[in-house]
Amino acid sequence: MRRKVYVSGSRPDIQVPFAEVGLTDGSTPVRLYDTSGPGVFDHLPRVDWVADRRLHGAPVTQLGCARAGIITPEMEYVALREGVTPELVRDEIAAGRAVLPANVNHPEIEPMIIGKAFLVKVNANIGTSAVTSDVAEEVEKLTWATRWGADTVMDLSTGPRIHETREAIMRNSAVPIGTVPIYQALEKVKGDPLKLTWEIYRETIIEQAEQGVDYMTVHAGVLLRYVPLAADRVTGIVSRGGSIMAAWCLAKHRENFLYTNFEELCEIFARYDITFSLGDGLRPGSIADANDEAQFGELRTLGELTEIAWRHDVQVMVEGPGHVPMHKIKENVDLQQEVCHEAPFYTLGPLTTDIAPAYDHITSAIGAAMIAMYGTAMLCYVTPKEHLGLPDRNDVKAGVIAYKIAAHAADLAKGHPGAQAWDDALSKARFEFRWEDQFDLSLDPETARSYHDETLPAPAAKTA
Amino acid sequence: MRRKVYVSGSRPDIQVPFAEVGLTDGSTPVRLYDTSGPGVFDHLPRVDWVADRRLHGAPVTQLGCARAGIITPEMEYVALREGVTPELVRDEIAAGRAVLPANVNHPEIEPMIIGKAFLVKVNANIGTSAVTSDVAEEVEKLTWATRWGADTVMDLSTGPRIHETREAIMRNSAVPIGTVPIYQALEKVKGDPLKLTWEIYRETIIEQAEQGVDYMTVHAGVLLRYVPLAADRVTGIVSRGGSIMAAWCLAKHRENFLYTNFEELCEIFARYDITFSLGDGLRPGSIADANDEAQFGELRTLGELTEIAWRHDVQVMVEGPGHVPMHKIKENVDLQQEVCHEAPFYTLGPLTTDIAPAYDHITSAIGAAMIAMYGTAMLCYVTPKEHLGLPDRNDVKAGVIAYKIAAHAADLAKGHPGAQAWDDALSKARFEFRWEDQFDLSLDPETARSYHDETLPAPAAKTA
Repeated sequence: MRRKVYVSGSRPDIQVPFAEVGLTDGSTPVRLYDTSGPGVFDHLPRVDWVADRRLHGAPVTQLGCARAGIITPEMEYVALREGVTPELVRDEIAAGRAVLPANVNHPEIEPMIIGKAFLVKVNANIGTSAVTSDVAEEVEKLTWATRWGADTVMDLSTGPRIHETREAIMRNSAVPIGTVPIYQALEKVKGDPLKLTWEIYRETIIEQAEQGVDYMTVHAGVLLRYVPLAADRVTGIVSRGGSIMAAWCLAKHRENFLYTNFEELCEIFARYDITFSLGDGLRPGSIADANDEAQFGELRTLGELTEIAWRHDVQVMVEGPGHVPMHKIKENVDLQQEVCHEAPFYTLGPLTTDIAPAYDHITSAIGAAMIAMYGTAMLCYVTPKEHLGLPDRNDVKAGVIAYKIAAHAADLAKGHPGAQAWDDALSKARFEFRWEDQFDLSLDPETARSYHDETLPAPAAKTA
Repeated sequence: MRRKVYVSGSRPDIQVPFAEVGLTDGSTPVRLYDTSGPGVFDHLPRVDWVADRRLHGAPVTQLGCARAGIITPEMEYVALREGVTPELVRDEIAAGRAVLPANVNHPEIEPMIIGKAFLVKVNANIGTSAVTSDVAEEVEKLTWATRWGADTVMDLSTGPRIHETREAIMRNSAVPIGTVPIYQALEKVKGDPLKLTWEIYRETIIEQAEQGVDYMTVHAGVLLRYVPLAADRVTGIVSRGGSIMAAWCLAKHRENFLYTNFEELCEIFARYDITFSLGDGLRPGSIADANDEAQFGELRTLGELTEIAWRHDVQVMVEGPGHVPMHKIKENVDLQQEVCHEAPFYTLGPLTTDIAPAYDHITSAIGAAMIAMYGTAMLCYVTPKEHLGLPDRNDVKAGVIAYKIAAHAADLAKGHPGAQAWDDALSKARFEFRWEDQFDLSLDPETARSYHDETLPAPAAKTA
């Protein structure tokens, strides 16, 4: 049987959720990390945590606090969640090796941490488009994605109701929400990249910051001089944000305004404790283009920007590919960790082959597991609809599950304390034919149970 | 558009199938390896190939021929199929680094090769059980599995109609068929392992050899002294063949009769050119048990048996796990290659975590891709029903596709000549919005097309 339990911290308003699995053989219940959220957001202790810091003149950002030696309630929460000491959490954040994305305007959050010393995390993308989806449907996708284990959700909405959709998502999300603000900025200029300006972009990020967005993808590393490097690729520039900025740079023959205004961007992010997700606008879009000079040139620039953000006490993670064959995966992590000074790496897959559209959750789960084993901190999921269409509810679930598998396989390979206890409990239940325990311990109890019942439906068979 | 084409060898009866994908931009069609078989088996040139060798007193086995410097028609066929020289094929077989499983009594076969110098292969398991399935259904599963790319199929039938099922499978199979003869031997003694004898087993393998079985799993490495090593495991002995032999050894306190009669087994295999698949009866059944002394002790014995088989000119591959966390995968290949003198490794997955029943095609595709990158020659698929029930048609397809992805990802990582051309053609089609080309080049064109059409059904959208 699964039930939700809460573990209290040093103060009564720190209540950390777990999914506790009771076992029929009477052995100690297994506690699993739980991202499903409270359901109803009627009690928001983080309002007080943020207010307290303001009152006492503490730094605004978690990075600022960590550097000042402060263990925030958010850090303590995360430590309980991960089964580590609050000091480790603080020290990893202070060193820039981990981020705790939590906008001061997002009190609904259940704090979590992204860094290689911690459990590997999974992001799920959702969002409306011009052709499909409504607000309620996106909130439903958010709830659905976190039910299956998404640790953060990116709202990639485009189309007419961006602000309203995001507001609904923020107010119903216990996980950090990320966005790519250039998408909304582009809507404001009717889709013409050449009409984009720093002012419109700045207005957009402030609008989103006020709503509580926790991290934002910023393609500030797409420099004018890198764009021609993508010309001879098999698949050119495939990142949407990357191609918007590349088009702008080329047409105006000017440097990327996100790069030239990066210091001001840091000042805004610092006020809200927004975490940078430095976008890889020149990520490869195919096996053929992996690890090329366009990609790695941009990555080096992201390293420079990381240092600038850190000077402003702003937290940073760095985005990575994409499409990479297995033998070129490790190089991505090694180089990113080197040139970005161990800032957390956040990768999209990578897909390890291009031959299987409709199965890219699998082609990329292979790459995701490997890249996480080598030190990537968060994995952006890929659904079966990648390259083909917009993910529906089933696709979201398939993507999240495939990525929870990849993340946990990496936790095991990295020897994360406690990770293997989950596998061992399930394996033991399997060996002893404790079917109900096996189902309850499964990543997806419903499907495991239904597959079993198809062949052997009788209750007796389950305890045999 | 996809169509089947045949490439001729040095003699007109060598006709090697490919799936040729024509492209709408007029570029050179892409030829893909094709396992789908001829459909109707009305023309069997291999009858003559085998008869010719007999007539000229050539060695019976491909290993014998290769060692004598002979390039058989089967070897030439394989060379054309793989895009390599016939000499490479011969030399890899002669060295024991590759096997060409082809029983002299299986003329329906389209020859293929299993070895680390060649494309990574995928096996699919099918078979009737006491409770479900009929003969026609198994033949249908065979056809279905090879349609999606299974390179060999293992018939693991149990229950009342084993012989008849196998006969139907053999006569309708263009891929090598493997079996685990101990399953049928056990049926002959009404399921009581203690009634098993060498004589019953020998009679069973001769029966199967006469039908044309191309390779057989033999658990000859489960030695009496290894069995106690599994006692303290989380999941004991999970291989069915392994536990049958372990029960026999323990109850009689005698050495495994497959080990003590191994020379005679080799003599029988040599007469038909049956390939050994030396079973890993002590493979780990959970993450906790990976790479333990029971497993590796047996592996060393399989190395000794490999040398004995080779003295009889009998081809050998060696089976491997199972359940292995990512950081322990490479050690499996390295040790197997060392102690088994580079005989091809043939692994079941491995699953990289135990927490996801119903998704073990994914947990294991991760491990399969990695173990193949490190040098495993053939991957035994795992379906979503693993540990839960018997795979149906959809499960077979899901398992084969996941494993074709793993195998191809490994081909890319190993730099197999020509492997990346497939990815590049698809990526280019994707970048140029040649939707029909993208679908036709997909591992599963139907599903890719249907996913796309869900969101953007208009034909215009496909050429946009």
